[in-house]
Amino acid sequence: MTEQASASRRRPGRRPGSADTRGQILAAAREAFAEKGFDKATVRGIARRAEVDPALVHHYFASKEGMFVAAMELPINPENVIPLLLAGPREEIGERLTRFVLTMTSEAAARQPVLALMRTAMTNERMVVMIREFMTQALLNRVAEALGIPPLRMELAFAQLFGTVLVRYVLQLEPLASVGVEELVELLAPTVQRYLDPL
Amino acid sequence: MTEQASASRRRPGRRPGSADTRGQILAAAREAFAEKGFDKATVRGIARRAEVDPALVHHYFASKEGMFVAAMELPINPENVIPLLLAGPREEIGERLTRFVLTMTSEAAARQPVLALMRTAMTNERMVVMIREFMTQALLNRVAEALGIPPLRMELAFAQLFGTVLVRYVLQLEPLASVGVEELVELLAPTVQRYLDPL
Repeated sequence: MTEQASASRRRPGRRPGSADTRGQILAAAREAFAEKGFDKATVRGIARRAEVDPALVHHYFASKEGMFVAAMELPINPENVIPLLLAGPREEIGERLTRFVLTMTSEAAARQPVLALMRTAMTNERMVVMIREFMTQALLNRVAEALGIPPLRMELAFAQLFGTVLVRYVLQLEPLASVGVEELVELLAPTVQRYLDPL
Repeated sequence: MTEQASASRRRPGRRPGSADTRGQILAAAREAFAEKGFDKATVRGIARRAEVDPALVHHYFASKEGMFVAAMELPINPENVIPLLLAGPREEIGERLTRFVLTMTSEAAARQPVLALMRTAMTNERMVVMIREFMTQALLNRVAEALGIPPLRMELAFAQLFGTVLVRYVLQLEPLASVGVEELVELLAPTVQRYLDPL
């Protein structure tokens, strides 16, 4: 969605590459992220690997984060979601974050790629580096920094929500697997809020 | 450990089977748990599958829980640990449970089989049934019942600790991967306590 929107917004005068160019760039991105991790992979290196001009990579993907999101078929781009989560009262950030994660994962189409990434992280030691770096750089540290809290507290909030999603959708323990989003928000939001509160 | 202790305590007059009998029973148990789940597998069925007398199964393993623990090479048997966790002040159960999980998983030899079981649950749809049933019946529901709290609250406490262990040892996000047990207990125990408090 994001890439398509930004592609049509930025469409240059010249030919934007074949229908397959985007796929070619994403295949190169997947290779590069897996080999080098998220931090060390570069747009330039991915362009070289895909044998396209770096400008063409920028044409399709506004950022390295956007490329990672598209390569892993993730349902959301942290660059777009984080500002929305941070907007609004600070004392309700726990509730907003909890509701966002539970609502997003309640849709199978959004949940599948997230669970796929979690499974990869659990089982593939080579891929875990890129997932760790993406999560830290693109997601957790950004929120922690914006809120002025230690990264450790952000990681514990993440552990609560990550664990909940796994227990709900992978282990499928009852009643957690069947209970409604709002009942869970009520129970979980105070925990997440406590970690994210100013010290 | 437990099985050995109980085996020598209960050693009967007759020959307790070949050195391989225990391994034969465990192989049959692994098959039976994977096929039927934890709830439906029976000591009698496992004895039949291993082609040994049910009494011999009881000679090696005091319970189905003990057999599951040995078959999966888990470092602890919930039957032994739960009473220890429940002993002591109710208002400190969050701290005891958190410290127990973090201390146990801080030893690689204890952590490996636990992570292996988690990985299996994440990736093997057939095996997840047995893991789910064991966790619910042998672990979470027992604690929830003893504390008189809804199972959902026990599952959310578990999700926090399970998520923390995964982020610490599988994703290895920093600083969570390196921080000491006591610093984590201080941050996590109030969360766990809140879920386990009387309503």
